[in-house]
Amino acid sequence: MRISDVLRNKGGGVVTIRPDDTVAHLLAVLSEHRIGALVVSDDGKGVHGIVSERDVVRHLHSAGAAVLDGPVSEIMTAEVTTCGRDDEVAGLAQTMTDQRIRHVPVVVDDELLAIVSIGDIVKHRIAALQNERDQLVEYIQQ
Amino acid sequence: MRISDVLRNKGGGVVTIRPDDTVAHLLAVLSEHRIGALVVSDDGKGVHGIVSERDVVRHLHSAGAAVLDGPVSEIMTAEVTTCGRDDEVAGLAQTMTDQRIRHVPVVVDDELLAIVSIGDIVKHRIAALQNERDQLVEYIQQ
Repeated sequence: MRISDVLRNKGGGVVTIRPDDTVAHLLAVLSEHRIGALVVSDDGKGVHGIVSERDVVRHLHSAGAAVLDGPVSEIMTAEVTTCGRDDEVAGLAQTMTDQRIRHVPVVVDDELLAIVSIGDIVKHRIAALQNERDQLVEYIQQ
Repeated sequence: MRISDVLRNKGGGVVTIRPDDTVAHLLAVLSEHRIGALVVSDDGKGVHGIVSERDVVRHLHSAGAAVLDGPVSEIMTAEVTTCGRDDEVAGLAQTMTDQRIRHVPVVVDDELLAIVSIGDIVKHRIAALQNERDQLVEYIQQ
């Protein structure tokens, strides 16, 4: 199973935030879309970073409330693991577990196409395993 | 498979926070333990609420930085879904998906025993399905 199979069940379009937007604005966008992380991009296409609720909370702890008025670029993770549409889901699941990351942008021809979460991956992994089991049971009962 | 099977692979002990501790202190505890949520309890036994990174971020957005000096009780979720040691993992997985919650305290005789995360549940669900599939394949190949 490939990332393109996972994307088929997700709506298109990715919300991004600019690196010079404030952290306060980031909180508004996360709330509005009821999500936990955003891709940071200054043109909506290139991936300049990724920023999550956890980044906000950790920097609030280390630097205090001044973080809210600062730019997203100061708290984002700039080295982003990305994947392609043809990558194997199982491989990406392993990478996410190893690196302890929950969100991976899907990039095609240097352009941001989508974002996949560990939740998307797990849902597909379980569905595939259940399907495989059901086919085996059917085969045995024939 | 039951919750007790999941707990067997987790270390014991649950970190809690008091309802009158400040949100700033909550951030320190979350950072220190590298976790995303805490049970709120005034004696370490009763479950008075649950509080997550998301609660902090949402309240920062709606109420501003003053939230940091306020008590945890103001941002926690007071109605907590709990489970017992003998509950079925599959049922809890469904409950967590339906209610969109990531952490469930395990309570035995009105005392907090542990906390299970959606990650714990998923890991066991996948392991069980893989195991079942492998046994079926072995059965067919005999």
